[in-house]
Amino acid sequence: MRETEIIEQIRRQTFKNDQDRTLVRGIGDDCAIVRPRAHEDLVFTSDFVLEDRHFTLRTHTPAAIGEKALARSLSDLAAMGAEPVFCLVSLAVPAELGGPFVKRFYDGLLRTAKRYSISLAGGDLGRFDKVIADVMCCGRVPRGKAMLRSGAKAGHRVFVTGKLGAAAHAFNAGRPILPKPRLTEGATVRKLGVSAAIDLSDGLSLDLARLCLASNVSAEIDSIRLPIARGATLEQALHGGEDYELLVTAAPKIRMPLGVTEIGVVTRKQSAVVLMDGHPLQSKGFDHFA
Amino acid sequence: MRETEIIEQIRRQTFKNDQDRTLVRGIGDDCAIVRPRAHEDLVFTSDFVLEDRHFTLRTHTPAAIGEKALARSLSDLAAMGAEPVFCLVSLAVPAELGGPFVKRFYDGLLRTAKRYSISLAGGDLGRFDKVIADVMCCGRVPRGKAMLRSGAKAGHRVFVTGKLGAAAHAFNAGRPILPKPRLTEGATVRKLGVSAAIDLSDGLSLDLARLCLASNVSAEIDSIRLPIARGATLEQALHGGEDYELLVTAAPKIRMPLGVTEIGVVTRKQSAVVLMDGHPLQSKGFDHFA
Repeated sequence: MRETEIIEQIRRQTFKNDQDRTLVRGIGDDCAIVRPRAHEDLVFTSDFVLEDRHFTLRTHTPAAIGEKALARSLSDLAAMGAEPVFCLVSLAVPAELGGPFVKRFYDGLLRTAKRYSISLAGGDLGRFDKVIADVMCCGRVPRGKAMLRSGAKAGHRVFVTGKLGAAAHAFNAGRPILPKPRLTEGATVRKLGVSAAIDLSDGLSLDLARLCLASNVSAEIDSIRLPIARGATLEQALHGGEDYELLVTAAPKIRMPLGVTEIGVVTRKQSAVVLMDGHPLQSKGFDHFA
Repeated sequence: MRETEIIEQIRRQTFKNDQDRTLVRGIGDDCAIVRPRAHEDLVFTSDFVLEDRHFTLRTHTPAAIGEKALARSLSDLAAMGAEPVFCLVSLAVPAELGGPFVKRFYDGLLRTAKRYSISLAGGDLGRFDKVIADVMCCGRVPRGKAMLRSGAKAGHRVFVTGKLGAAAHAFNAGRPILPKPRLTEGATVRKLGVSAAIDLSDGLSLDLARLCLASNVSAEIDSIRLPIARGATLEQALHGGEDYELLVTAAPKIRMPLGVTEIGVVTRKQSAVVLMDGHPLQSKGFDHFA
């Protein structure tokens, strides 16, 4: 199958959110065209998924790879409290996998796109010796309302959505990790007025340290309060990557919804030290270059 | 060097267009934040550059790879007549190349970013067995004014900017191909009111056929009129990829600036046939999946 035929096939089955007239033109030109609404900010992120780094062809079907590629990037929109608008998908696959693989990858990706109401607006398609995808997602927030990593203040409480360690536990059991981006949760806590947020892609210990660094504060958490996923260990909850839950901080007066657990408090120290039960917690999360 | 240190280094040396307050927040959070101006459309594109497909470590320095990665994507903005706003860069490199390679890649990319006034707003960084980069570029055009592939009408003239075949000639001579995105030319012809445009990334024969297909027309060109680059053959001018010149169509009354050459005419036939000197011209340009 030729590239133009494959692209035409994707274009025909593509998902476009018809309620939203922001995407003026999607797949089929040199660029996608977007007409932003007044009084909104747009947020942008891009994330790789790479064969034998983020998935293997043994553990993930083509559709699961497509789903994971989009979901990772959507999780960054959730961390800003943003509503999904559109995505660009760059995909390269080995010649021997060819058109059928591409089609099934997009089946999974577009099913996920539909679930989270994000339009596919374009991208790139190429040939490579391994499967690699890079997904760029755009979301919208009311002007000036995006949640940042840098707003945490001493005395604010630290919260996480959902349960921690589930992904590391699944990985150890040989099951594919398919992140569920917390878009609804992100939008909900944004409206409550949280002070800072980050998504847990590389593990609580590393991502909490990053939030503290960006906010120029420190934090203390209590192991007893951690919402640990069924079957997972404390170690997995603290350092396991790819949970894609949200970590947020908020002033004490703010009441969080059910399913959002208070795990600690922000402290004044400027050195981004995370204490657990009074002892320094080492950042053992996933560092791509360590 | 750890990922956080590398990112911090990129952030410090990054280019941000300070005249432009559109980019509210760049590198350092889960997403970049962009505040669009009123009455403008934003255009988006992303392009892969993959080791041993678009470059080799033997022919291209790390800086040249960074330059090429950005320039390819900027060329798509040029094809829409857009002004560059910001880019996201996803880069993965082998562990043994590590931090120094990443730094030199960004040296080349940021030099190019500065030349074309595009801010680096974020991206992704990972480890992989080969060097791969995916660059997403965002540009702006006045509302409704983006040049499309689909506007060519029978009787309109066909033009190209610059000279053709230079990249194929350089490639055969073993020299690295470093595209120069035609952003100034794109903006100039957009203001003149051209009817359709595409950038010549995969060769004149294939890209003209694509423009005809999108516009539901055909075209006739004259070999004698083609502006062939010094040293290049007619074959290279017709089918050589990566020239990144612009191909545009315009009503006969529109006068093009110097350096833009009329090469033919748009015809009524709906089957996207390209004739050269009266004979069908086969599309031999680069098809990534053929």
